[in-house]
Amino acid sequence: MQLNSSIGLKFIANFLNIEANCEDCEIAKLTTLKLATHEDVSFFDNEKYLNDLKTTQAKAVLLKEEFVKFLPNGVIALISKEPYLKMAELSQLFKSSLISSDIKEPIIGNNCTILPNVYIGSGSKIGENVTILAGSFIGENVTIGSNTIIYPNVSIYNNCVIGSNVILHAGVVVGSDGFGYAHTKDGKHIKIEHLGNVEIEDDVEIGSNSTIDRAVFGVTIIKKGTKIDNLVHVAHNCEIGEYSIIVAQSGLSGSTKLGRNVIMGGQSATAGHLSIGDFATIAARGGVTKSIEGKKTYSGFPLMEHRKWLKLQAKLSKFSQE
Amino acid sequence: MQLNSSIGLKFIANFLNIEANCEDCEIAKLTTLKLATHEDVSFFDNEKYLNDLKTTQAKAVLLKEEFVKFLPNGVIALISKEPYLKMAELSQLFKSSLISSDIKEPIIGNNCTILPNVYIGSGSKIGENVTILAGSFIGENVTIGSNTIIYPNVSIYNNCVIGSNVILHAGVVVGSDGFGYAHTKDGKHIKIEHLGNVEIEDDVEIGSNSTIDRAVFGVTIIKKGTKIDNLVHVAHNCEIGEYSIIVAQSGLSGSTKLGRNVIMGGQSATAGHLSIGDFATIAARGGVTKSIEGKKTYSGFPLMEHRKWLKLQAKLSKFSQE
Amino acid sequence: MQLNSSIGLKFIANFLNIEANCEDCEIAKLTTLKLATHEDVSFFDNEKYLNDLKTTQAKAVLLKEEFVKFLPNGVIALISKEPYLKMAELSQLFKSSLISSDIKEPIIGNNCTILPNVYIGSGSKIGENVTILAGSFIGENVTIGSNTIIYPNVSIYNNCVIGSNVILHAGVVVGSDGFGYAHTKDGKHIKIEHLGNVEIEDDVEIGSNSTIDRAVFGVTIIKKGTKIDNLVHVAHNCEIGEYSIIVAQSGLSGSTKLGRNVIMGGQSATAGHLSIGDFATIAARGGVTKSIEGKKTYSGFPLMEHRKWLKLQAKLSKFSQE
Repeated sequence: MQLNSSIGLKFIANFLNIEANCEDCEIAKLTTLKLATHEDVSFFDNEKYLNDLKTTQAKAVLLKEEFVKFLPNGVIALISKEPYLKMAELSQLFKSSLISSDIKEPIIGNNCTILPNVYIGSGSKIGENVTILAGSFIGENVTIGSNTIIYPNVSIYNNCVIGSNVILHAGVVVGSDGFGYAHTKDGKHIKIEHLGNVEIEDDVEIGSNSTIDRAVFGVTIIKKGTKIDNLVHVAHNCEIGEYSIIVAQSGLSGSTKLGRNVIMGGQSATAGHLSIGDFATIAARGGVTKSIEGKKTYSGFPLMEHRKWLKLQAKLSKFSQE
Repeated sequence: MQLNSSIGLKFIANFLNIEANCEDCEIAKLTTLKLATHEDVSFFDNEKYLNDLKTTQAKAVLLKEEFVKFLPNGVIALISKEPYLKMAELSQLFKSSLISSDIKEPIIGNNCTILPNVYIGSGSKIGENVTILAGSFIGENVTIGSNTIIYPNVSIYNNCVIGSNVILHAGVVVGSDGFGYAHTKDGKHIKIEHLGNVEIEDDVEIGSNSTIDRAVFGVTIIKKGTKIDNLVHVAHNCEIGEYSIIVAQSGLSGSTKLGRNVIMGGQSATAGHLSIGDFATIAARGGVTKSIEGKKTYSGFPLMEHRKWLKLQAKLSKFSQE
Repeated sequence: MQLNSSIGLKFIANFLNIEANCEDCEIAKLTTLKLATHEDVSFFDNEKYLNDLKTTQAKAVLLKEEFVKFLPNGVIALISKEPYLKMAELSQLFKSSLISSDIKEPIIGNNCTILPNVYIGSGSKIGENVTILAGSFIGENVTIGSNTIIYPNVSIYNNCVIGSNVILHAGVVVGSDGFGYAHTKDGKHIKIEHLGNVEIEDDVEIGSNSTIDRAVFGVTIIKKGTKIDNLVHVAHNCEIGEYSIIVAQSGLSGSTKLGRNVIMGGQSATAGHLSIGDFATIAARGGVTKSIEGKKTYSGFPLMEHRKWLKLQAKLSKFSQE
């Protein structure tokens, strides 16, 4: 996804006001410890990821001094007291421009119907038999498969990937920046540029005015055959398994992973960084606060098994009448 | 609403891989047992509707073998072990095309103000003194009454009907497909095409980015003088009575019926297929799980009368301090 | 914000079918008792504002007969049994037209990138280095600061003010009418025209499909550095302090005031006309029903301090197993 040319490590260190005791080299992108390769810079600020630090392939890592000892041999330390804040600042450098100066004519397959007032950005590729209704925006380097229908006033940000036989209803937003900031000591919020994208697999349908945020690094992915209702929020870096069902006004927090055939009832929600097992059902209004196993039905907030919730409600009903 | 020409019954049976022991005849549309006339095909898959089956006027009905005996005389049985799934497949056949090849110039009344970048589809009729701001999409065969204001980036799907003195705020979506699928044994979701429409009566106002889904069959209707706030979801086949008030971020599930002057507080919700009596008030966050009578105030989830909810909260407050 | 020329008081009285025992004079605008100056008309219908009545600078006030005695010397009484309803009717007179007949070419700063299918209304002023993506609507007399990014299909209503370094994601609506009506005895809802606007200060970011309603009178304000996630609803006349964080699908009711660095978790909400102190945190799903002090964490609905909520949940968990 990284479209910029590489940036010198000395330049980066200088930009962040950090010392880099090493020879200069070219850095291809900023990414997580896990995703990083020999050409990338990464960061470490949460001990939960200590194992990733110990095994990272990154060229250089932003981190606090006391963790330098865990770096694999040869990885360059970029030492800071606030590595997360530095990462946010650095993300600005790796942001690609919204609109290319070097325009590549989009490629549009046979038999497409594209109404007036549709904008298609540089380098985008659209399959065969695609319908795009008026007022929709297709950013740059977007890929859309065949037989997909894009209803009016849909917005697809740069670099997103939409499969075949997908239906995006009016007002859907795919690829807007996730809600991610680093916070300064005096309470300001520094934007973390979202360098990842969104991938929507084949046979997915997304209801009107739902929003799917792009990943910080990597990808927010909605897998094959999943159906999403209206006004649903899917945060950055979520992964929704195949054939899941997300009913209206539900919200998924960042980096949450749903298995296949998960059902989330209306106005349900999840906290971030958790996983929901295959074939789990969350009843309407359920609020998932920690990882749960599949093949069960859950309710309530905090979440519990549905039969426990029913029992609790029955008891409360009695209790209120005592 | 059915704009396609009719389809032969033998063709339908063949398409669904079903036997039809009868002479061929023309079928006008697919619809419910109740709405069907002598020229229509319908389906039966829920014993709740057994009375409708016994009295249907349909020409032919998709159903399981054991219910054939309830069919009125002369109604043709289309026997399947999965009639609901077959109905979903059949709905594809009756879907009209999004964009007509035969274009009828829209008719626009006197004294309308229509800004640039507005799309108005074939066959639509717009009354007098209507204002449509930039970026809005009016589909095909849409009717809009007089003195109505359509703010920017509104999307109105084909065949919807908007009354006079209506205000649709920016980003409103009217007529997107409801969230309806038939499920295969291996967990896939087959889209049920939404062949109905939305009707919004006079003097209705709808807040920004709210979404009103079209009916599967028949109509989703919002009656005269009702006011809907921002980010509200109204599902397929709902009926909202006159002069109701729906506060922001509320959600109505499918086929729910509100009486007149019903008030739904912010972030409230209803389950599907229930009815709320005239002049009922649902407090903010109330979750209506079964039909309720009018002229009362309700709260909570599960829902209870408001005074009972207040009592319960008082008791819980004490309980937490014990 | 009031762009209409003034209206004669006798004309107003006649329009409202009210007697005005005074000489005629010109009225500049309709506004609150507090905001009114010697050229304005105001209204009184809630004893909570009795102090405002006693000290108002208004030229004339709509009110019930029994409150005339509280009017400061020289203020003209416009007596009605339904002053709130009369105010709603009067707001129609002071509404400015959506589209000017007298067109002033917008002023656009250096180095802006404005994609096709963008509409910019009469009299709007756009700073330097602003990016506006396709499908966005900028109404009349809108001001946008420098370095601001407006993503696709954003709608900004007339007279709103957007600061510098602001990011508005796709589908955001700024300045739609708030949800305000006066109710007749027979249950109809008379629209209160929203004569105020929205002001978004520098460094604010607003997530996709969020909606910010304009003030009835005065301004809905989002202060410097605040970050708002997707699908958030901010009602008329809210004030959100500097560097606050509003997570996805939260909703603020009318006239609510947040201090600085307030955090509202996902799907949280507030009732109207309350205030939240600086550095308060509302956990996800929290429902704020009365004013709360700052520097504390709250949860639940009804809201309580978070540690009390945790204790309650622990007790309920035990209780359900008894």
